Order: sequence, then structure tokens, then C-alpha cells
Amino acid sequence: MINPNYKALLSGKSVIRELSEYATERGKEIGYDNVFDYSLGNPSVPCTQSFTDAMMDLLQHSDPVSVHGYSPSLGIQSVRTAVAESLNARFGTCYEAKHIFMTCGAAGAVAHAVRCVTVPGDEVLTFAPFFPEYIQYVNQTGAVLKIIPADTDSFQINLEKFEEMLTERVAAVLINTPNNPSGVVYTSETLTRLAELLRRKQEEFGHDIFLISDEPYREIVFAGVDAPYVAGFYDNTLTCYSFSKSLSLPGERIGYIAVNPRATDADIIAVICGQISRGIGHNCPPSIIQLAVSRVLNETSDLSVYETNMNLLYHKLVELGFTVVKPGGTFYIFPKALEDDANAFCMKAKKYDLILVPADNFGCPGYFRMAYCIDTQKVRRSLDVLEKFVREEYKS
Amino acid sequence: MINPNYKALLSGKSVIRELSEYATERGKEIGYDNVFDYSLGNPSVPCTQSFTDAMMDLLQHSDPVSVHGYSPSLGIQSVRTAVAESLNARFGTCYEAKHIFMTCGAAGAVAHAVRCVTVPGDEVLTFAPFFPEYIQYVNQTGAVLKIIPADTDSFQINLEKFEEMLTERVAAVLINTPNNPSGVVYTSETLTRLAELLRRKQEEFGHDIFLISDEPYREIVFAGVDAPYVAGFYDNTLTCYSFSKSLSLPGERIGYIAVNPRATDADIIAVICGQISRGIGHNCPPSIIQLAVSRVLNETSDLSVYETNMNLLYHKLVELGFTVVKPGGTFYIFPKALEDDANAFCMKAKKYDLILVPADNFGCPGYFRMAYCIDTQKVRRSLDVLEKFVREEYKS
Repeated sequence: MINPNYKALLSGKSVIRELSEYATERGKEIGYDNVFDYSLGNPSVPCTQSFTDAMMDLLQHSDPVSVHGYSPSLGIQSVRTAVAESLNARFGTCYEAKHIFMTCGAAGAVAHAVRCVTVPGDEVLTFAPFFPEYIQYVNQTGAVLKIIPADTDSFQINLEKFEEMLTERVAAVLINTPNNPSGVVYTSETLTRLAELLRRKQEEFGHDIFLISDEPYREIVFAGVDAPYVAGFYDNTLTCYSFSKSLSLPGERIGYIAVNPRATDADIIAVICGQISRGIGHNCPPSIIQLAVSRVLNETSDLSVYETNMNLLYHKLVELGFTVVKPGGTFYIFPKALEDDANAFCMKAKKYDLILVPADNFGCPGYFRMAYCIDTQKVRRSLDVLEKFVREEYKS
Repeated sequence: MINPNYKALLSGKSVIRELSEYATERGKEIGYDNVFDYSLGNPSVPCTQSFTDAMMDLLQHSDPVSVHGYSPSLGIQSVRTAVAESLNARFGTCYEAKHIFMTCGAAGAVAHAVRCVTVPGDEVLTFAPFFPEYIQYVNQTGAVLKIIPADTDSFQINLEKFEEMLTERVAAVLINTPNNPSGVVYTSETLTRLAELLRRKQEEFGHDIFLISDEPYREIVFAGVDAPYVAGFYDNTLTCYSFSKSLSLPGERIGYIAVNPRATDADIIAVICGQISRGIGHNCPPSIIQLAVSRVLNETSDLSVYETNMNLLYHKLVELGFTVVKPGGTFYIFPKALEDDANAFCMKAKKYDLILVPADNFGCPGYFRMAYCIDTQKVRRSLDVLEKFVREEYKS
């Protein structure tokens, strides 16, 4: 019999996916250039030439049996060492290879981390607005994701609500900074207060509370913004990273978990993640991608386009009277809709071929997300359309 | 808290892995050339030049944003179409793209297939001898793997025991042909009888019983041996494939599930596998590898070395008096040890730097496995050592 739990998921279609498919279809009618598709968080800049060169070099000059051979299930040793050293050089940390577990992107990292530090029935907290796939990463393990309401003034964290919901049942807290969808970067002050509360509750409850820090946007931080390294604030931190955005390699499924060396059981968490992999048949990320990425760990694609796009959109949105927090990073912006029902708002925008994503699924009704990982010329052209939409629908 | 179930797995170390590590250490002492390491099933021949060329072409001549972009979670559409067409041309099947789900190797395929067609508490049957990781693939879903004792005369299936164990609780049967570790290929007669029994029991119990057919060795079949296509025998078949062995790409994690178009719910099984992926963060195999493999679907590495090695070993083993079934494929051979305790037998062999794997973990005590995916010259040199070992330990 087909498992009814998974079958039930089929009815819950992804709004983002539906809008993206609509944009593609609409593009066939009127030309994709005329569809202002802000739906999908797919990087729009190419990977670095250095990554391509590393791949070519491995293909041309290394033994194919070795390049394409099995990776150990925790990752290739030299790659784990290189990741640890790169993190230590950048953030003053003390990772060793044994603290690094190579994963299929941040998605694989978060899913493994949750399985590692929870048992079925445990609660995992996250802060709205949040990436909707967290529901799957957590709930399919048997743990239960609970959402802390957003602090919509700043999109930092709602500390009062957090303390209220941080009960004995909570095994882990899942955060995402720089944040999808708000674009906000958690400040040192936010992280300090978060960590203090976690430490206090750990002591009170007499058990560990792990902080799972999902950081795929770590490299996309804008001028003047400080993006503190989360694990520096709290010992029991599992840092989940992906090269999808920094190197524009989302399809190649490569990332890692870095276990804070001061965490409880720090020396065996990566090994336990390897055991978890066995059960899902995931085993290890692709060997050649591990090897190539390990040669360009300290580089990124040219990410400047995202800041250019953000500034164009932010200023236009403010000019048009939107309530919006200026993003500190990522390629998302998260304004308040001009009516209470963000779905209705986004449906109206669709008539102007503006594809915006209502934020109900992000746990923040009344807001919408724009993913501005698109060509700057298109962003520029969209500004007049945005203005026309707002004036005709809301200011006439 | 670290999940105690996964922590408990740490104590159950893999015998294969331990022997392989021993072989590496021993190699450092006496030179790896002098260690006859038959422990690991890691392909010893390179991938095809055509695969390398396809990779190079994609890197040099395609848009990197597209090549490295997100794959849809079921796999890249053109790749799924190409896989379906290749199977149809070879096996006279009627797959469409919607029946193909791209996976991270056969491991990912089997793990997804089991999750898809079972609910926790269901039983999954497999035949000894079997690949020990099946225990993880099945038991970590909440289903329970049960082992049908081996038919050690032929290493085909023990039909009588199978019928006895095929109760109402069984949701799926997991088979592996050509078989790791026996090297045996299931005959048409075996598959016909297996399918007849499954159909009869489906009717009797009034529910589906899925056949999960794990086929990573499908392309390694020796002269004169017929390797029938399993899905041709039984409608409810999920074929799990990997390019690890056929193209010598075990590290690149690429394979698929092909859903028999005549299976129950055939049109939604791939979609459901996509939902399962969301929960484990696996999402999709690497994009560039999908694209490259889809260009060389009908090719294989030069696999002839495995048959050469098999013949050398088989004849020597027979000459030395071993009870052994001649392999029809794979790169494994599975003789009976010369004493009841195969562990003791393999420990004695180790003194001769012959690294053999006792088969207790494969569900077949008293036997041992040799993985002859190694250089033919080394196989030749090992024959005298094997003879010396047998004569000194068992015939003096």
C-alpha cells in the first residue's frame, strides 16, 4: 500500500512552485522578458570560473577511479579538513575535520541535524517568518515544528513569545540568518539574548537544547551590515551551510554541518549523522563536487547584483508607501501587502505580470516575498509596473 | 539529546569497513601490492571517456546557471525522458518520464521505495544472502526487515520458506539480482515462480505486495548467462538502479527508481517519492551528473575484467576443493568456508594477507565473500597465496 502520510502531502501544493509554473506558462504567451517573476530563490549569477576550472582539472588530470570513487559517508577527509580550516581562518573557531559532516546542501544538513538531536515527539522551535520546507525537515522525523510569531517591527526575534514557548519539550531551536524570507540579518544583540535564554533554560530543564543554524545566505550580506557567526554565541550549535547561493551551485547539492567543538557529544555528532545517512540512502554528497568545492572554499560568485537589486526595490517600495524592513542580506525582500489579505494582493499583482509570493506559508500572513535573484535590467523595468499596479489598484 | 537509536548504531561496526581499514593499514607496512584485499565492492575500472567528455562539454559550452541550477525534485525532465526511452528500447517496456524518479544511487532508490510502499510496522522480506545495508534502509523507516534463509545449493530463492514467511503483514519484497554477495543471477524460472506466488498472495490478502528490485549490477553479467528484466515478470515492481557500477561512478550518487507502468498508483509513485525527499533533505541528485549520465545511458565502462577475475578465482577455488556456485555476474564470489566458523576461517586467511569477508552479516553463516573488483595481475598473484593458505591451514 502506498504510504498514506506521504500521499496526503500531494494535496498541499507549494504556492511558490505554482506561481513559478504560472510565470513560465505566462512567459510562453507574452515572452518571459515581460513577466516580472519574483517567485523563486534560484541564483541568477554563474558559479566562479575557478570552480569550473577545478572541475575541469579533476576531470582531465586526476585518476577517474579516485575522483568518482565512493566518498566516506562523512565526506572526503581532505575536504572535511579544508572546510574546518577555512571556517577557523574566517571566524576564529577551532573546528577539526571530525566536526564536519558533508551533506547534500543545507536541506540535507538541517534534516540530518534535526534527526540527530531529537526523538519523535520532541518539539523544535523556529521563528516566523520561516522557510516552509522546515515543516517537512522536522515533522517527517517524528519531531514537531512549532512556530514563534514574528516580530514584524524588525524581523529580529520575538523574545517574549520565545521564552513562553521554550518548554521542557523543546529539543532544538532552528534559526535562519540572513533570513529567508525577510532578508534580515540577526544582530549580535539578538544572538546574545537568544543564547542567554537557551543557556538558562538548559540549566533549568537539565537537558541540552541544540541550536540548528541554517546559513545558506551567509555570504550574501550588504554594505554596512554585520553578520555575526552564530556558533560563536552558543556552544550547542550545529551550523548548517550550503554552497548553493555562495557559489551558485544549487543543483549540485553540496553543503555541510559544522559541529561546535564545545557542543555536548561534539566528537560523535558527525559520526551519528553518518548513521542517519545510512537509513535514507543518502550516504554522501557527490565526490567530484566535494573535491572541486574544497579548492574554492574562500571564494564566492559575484554576488553584488543582489545588493543592487535590493536597493532599487527597497527605495521604490518605500516611495510607494509600503511598510518594509530594509534587508541586510539574501536576495529576498518582505514588504507588508497593501491590504490585509496578501493572497488577494498577489492575485491582483499577477494581472500586471508581477509575480509576488504571499507569505501565509512563511508564517507571516499579510506580507509577501519578492526573490530578486533576477537580472537588474528586469528589476528596473518592473519598477514602473509596480507603481502602475499600486496606483491603479490601491490609490485610485 | 542525541537520538539514542542512532547512537546505538555506532557500536555495530561494519565488518567490511573494518577489514578494509585493516588492509589499508597493512598495506602501509608491507606495500599495498602485497595485500590481497578482497573486502570492498568498489569498481576498479575507470568511467567511460564519453562520460568525461560529456562533463567537459557541459562545463565548457553550457550556461553554468542552467547546468548547476536546481533540478526539479523528481529529476530533470529531459533526463527522466531519456532514462525511460533507454529502458524501453532495451527491455520492451512502456515507461514514460513520469515513471522515473532520479535518486542518489541505488541506496537512495531502495530507501525511497521502501518508505513509499510501507507504513511503520509492515514487514519487508528479503532473501539471504543479502546486502547488509538493507537492514538500515528498511528498519529506519519503521518497517521491519525479515530474512528468508538462503538456498545454498544454487543461491536462487528458497521458495518454500518464502511462502511460509509471506504473511499478511508483508508489504514489500526486496530482491537483488545479480546478487551481492552470491554473484548469482536469478533465472526466468525463479522470477516466474516468485511472481506467481506474489500474485496469489496479493489476491488472498486483498492488498498490494510490491517487489523492490535492486539492480546495481544489471550490466555486469557473464557470458552465457541470461539476466531477465525483473519488472517484466510482475506488475507491482519498483526497479532500483544505480550507475555506480555500470559507469564506475559510485561517488557521484546517481541512479533512479523506474515504476512499472502497470503497478498500482503507477502515475503517482514518483511524485510521492518527491514528497519523501523533502523530509530527508535529499531533494535530487546532482544536476551536472544527471545531465552527463543522460548522454551515455546505453554505454558502460569496460567491465570485462570482472569476468576474467571471476574465472581465475572460480577455477582455483574448485581446484582447492571449495564448495562454490559459479557467479553469473557482479564482481563477487561466495564460497563456503573450510570450517564451520567463517570468521575463524577469514582470521586465518588474514595471516596470509588475504582479506576475505565472513558472511554472517549477509545472513549466510559459514560462507565468505570475495570482491574481485581489483587488478587481474593481483588476482593472479593471490592464487598461489590462496593455495598456500588452504594447504597449510586445512590440508596438512
